[in-house]
Amino acid sequence: MSAIETTVQATVRQALALALPGGGQLLVAVSGGADSLCLLHALCALALELGLALHVAHLDHGLRAASAADAAWVGALCADWELPCTLGHCEVRVLAERGRLSLEDAARQARYSFLARVARQVGARAVAVGHTADDQAETVLLHLLRGAGLEGLAGMAPDARWPLPDERGADRLRLLRPLLTLTRAETEAYCAAAGLLPRQDESNRDPAYTRNRVRLELLPLLRELNPGITATLGRTAQVIAGEVAALQSIELKVWAAMAAEESGGVRLARTVFEQQAVGLQRRLLRRAVAVLASLHDLTWEQVEAARRIALAGRTGACASLPHGLRLRVGYGWLWIEPAQLAADRDWPTLAQPMQLHIPGEATLAAGWRLTAQQLARAELPDDWATTREPWVAYLDADAVGCDVLLRARRPGDWLVPLGLGGRQKLSDLLINVKMPAVCREALPLVLVGEAIAWVVGVRCDQRFAVTDHTERVCVLRVARDVEG
Amino acid sequence: MSAIETTVQATVRQALALALPGGGQLLVAVSGGADSLCLLHALCALALELGLALHVAHLDHGLRAASAADAAWVGALCADWELPCTLGHCEVRVLAERGRLSLEDAARQARYSFLARVARQVGARAVAVGHTADDQAETVLLHLLRGAGLEGLAGMAPDARWPLPDERGADRLRLLRPLLTLTRAETEAYCAAAGLLPRQDESNRDPAYTRNRVRLELLPLLRELNPGITATLGRTAQVIAGEVAALQSIELKVWAAMAAEESGGVRLARTVFEQQAVGLQRRLLRRAVAVLASLHDLTWEQVEAARRIALAGRTGACASLPHGLRLRVGYGWLWIEPAQLAADRDWPTLAQPMQLHIPGEATLAAGWRLTAQQLARAELPDDWATTREPWVAYLDADAVGCDVLLRARRPGDWLVPLGLGGRQKLSDLLINVKMPAVCREALPLVLVGEAIAWVVGVRCDQRFAVTDHTERVCVLRVARDVEG
Repeated sequence: MSAIETTVQATVRQALALALPGGGQLLVAVSGGADSLCLLHALCALALELGLALHVAHLDHGLRAASAADAAWVGALCADWELPCTLGHCEVRVLAERGRLSLEDAARQARYSFLARVARQVGARAVAVGHTADDQAETVLLHLLRGAGLEGLAGMAPDARWPLPDERGADRLRLLRPLLTLTRAETEAYCAAAGLLPRQDESNRDPAYTRNRVRLELLPLLRELNPGITATLGRTAQVIAGEVAALQSIELKVWAAMAAEESGGVRLARTVFEQQAVGLQRRLLRRAVAVLASLHDLTWEQVEAARRIALAGRTGACASLPHGLRLRVGYGWLWIEPAQLAADRDWPTLAQPMQLHIPGEATLAAGWRLTAQQLARAELPDDWATTREPWVAYLDADAVGCDVLLRARRPGDWLVPLGLGGRQKLSDLLINVKMPAVCREALPLVLVGEAIAWVVGVRCDQRFAVTDHTERVCVLRVARDVEG
Repeated sequence: MSAIETTVQATVRQALALALPGGGQLLVAVSGGADSLCLLHALCALALELGLALHVAHLDHGLRAASAADAAWVGALCADWELPCTLGHCEVRVLAERGRLSLEDAARQARYSFLARVARQVGARAVAVGHTADDQAETVLLHLLRGAGLEGLAGMAPDARWPLPDERGADRLRLLRPLLTLTRAETEAYCAAAGLLPRQDESNRDPAYTRNRVRLELLPLLRELNPGITATLGRTAQVIAGEVAALQSIELKVWAAMAAEESGGVRLARTVFEQQAVGLQRRLLRRAVAVLASLHDLTWEQVEAARRIALAGRTGACASLPHGLRLRVGYGWLWIEPAQLAADRDWPTLAQPMQLHIPGEATLAAGWRLTAQQLARAELPDDWATTREPWVAYLDADAVGCDVLLRARRPGDWLVPLGLGGRQKLSDLLINVKMPAVCREALPLVLVGEAIAWVVGVRCDQRFAVTDHTERVCVLRVARDVEG
């Protein structure tokens, strides 16, 4: 066996021993080019030793004149090598138009969808593809050109989760790249040494594809500046993959400690958010959007604007996010929630406890005010007892006195809701009236001494209600100046 | 004022308001090119508003024929604008030869050293330089070409620590880059609008400098593939700087929880190390090397080899690191330490407690064995009491009995060291005999019941010593099979 065959097979052996230590059914994606042909040949040579049962898959993308001949060639090769083989065909051009995708994206989706289907059919837990160090370098550069962020610069993993997570069975399917540390030249040398005649894909030279320009123009220039650029980029991808793993594990921990899904939104603990390093703040906001909708259409500018508003910390302030979401700064929490839902539940909120003298006025958060006045019983409007305007409360002025406290709720709060005839926990009341959890935290309460007199916008307390004996009435009213 | 002047001055205003909110003395590095001239002009326009007292510094690197004329030109400009100015001169070629540095590295060192000195002299806490978004894009690409890792891809920060940390006063000096989000074309447009005639540095076109090839060849090609590449790379740098900040803060926390400097080495808690994501494991190993020596000469391969050996976890295994350091897998700890020091202190270690029946043999870690036999008093060698062979102990066999326990030390351990005549804490004994702390943790102790009979290699206990009444002697001996 030639030196190159030994090298390649040792690399493939190591990768498979790590990824599939027990062996088993393995699907091999074979285009017929040097990379995948080299991979298939090496896997065949090692199959017995590694306990692998191989199955070949080839998808004719219908994009080139020669593609049907390539498919037939792979089929004949498999017959010759006595390997089970599934040939597929699709019209990528049609898929691209239908899905408004680029040809490259449509081809990728069609290919991985096909491979997942065949893997299910043959019972394979893993699919091996022929990506090399050159493909890795191109991928890193393409992501750099696109501004794809750290996860993009990590390139392709040697043992990855399935790239189409929504595909049926994708959670149990892995994508293996045993050749990722070998160069394309090495796979070509392997084919030559093993007497294999790979197919040529003429579209690999079409400058309409950015990847081809990266391979044919950018990489040769970079190679002049650093002859080892392929290895350098592969190393960089590996370094960054490690850093990404560290960041993701931290992100997960912080998320678990400070985030919760509630009432169709996500809430993040504000102080914990503020303490995080910039990169984690960005990640937490992105994750919140991903949990509620998707990262699609989320721009850097949106993340940064949301982050700035979150850090400025003005209660009630909002920032727009895609998919109809917004970030809203609450008291103690940051809410990422549907903007519509949030509008439905615009309730007054209280930033901190405050005293209110009657008559008088208190400024609440986000443009809300609470005014208190005293009227003689006779001055009340006729329909005072029947209108159910939630933002006004009529209380017995003598029971209330001249000073009340405004505060948010605390554990253990209770009241005697008007009309209920008995004591009730505040938390139960708020659930009964179906107040969204998002609004409960900073909802203002009006207290007389230790007793809740009015749960603003929700219910008065029986003990402070206007009765037949009431002579003077305390009128409490909340209103909003402007859209906050 | 033209639109470009408004834009540039707004950018500089925002940067300075953030970096030096109270204003104060600011040193401005001015080469005379468009970037630094634009910066100086904008700073002059804003100095009163921002409370800045400006001082200009220019270093003649002595590399170009025109450099003395450039220096004179900057001096004349400052006289004209009534700005205090310090002109410096050095021979970078000489410095490069003397320090075996590239011209670029030598120039950079000379420049930042000069700027730090002038900043000290004029009492400036910050130095502003004219780096633009184009410089940032070039820097990111240069670091990518070099494989500089994540910190390199973060490029230049708008408000950075001093780049030469060993310079006197460097810990209090900051490097500001107010133009970092503006392009070079914008600084040129600003100069044109403000009627400024910047100097041209012909060495900016010299293809001998990699940076020039990046600017003149690589970036134009990238711009064909992505017309917004400068902004994309600037964004990428900013994203990565945020991620790096997150990683560094986590690294610091994990380090504080699991690392300690001791006896000229660093020890890392093994289980904590194993639980970290790959990127953090690499960072912890690099930090350990940086703490003891420097990151210079530490290769990726060394870090990966050390990491693999650490994770394999065979007690006693070692990996080479630069600067004469090595990683050694200890019981419960990973040691990064001078290999020489480590060799001086090759002591037996115990991986876990074990019973030993006498006569019999116990296998210790890293190829060490402990054998126990019983001899009649008469069988002892003549010199048994006078030789001070540390790896052999002679005890009273009847005092010892037939079963001993081997274990590592525990808090509160004590013994009655032979010859001392009284009880002593084991920890004090080990300090007195100057045993390196690194060896103490897993040093085997031989116990009879609860009592320490032999601190292996160090001292016997008086209570188990051979006396005139001893009839049978228990001989304990440790030896090493192979280099572990």
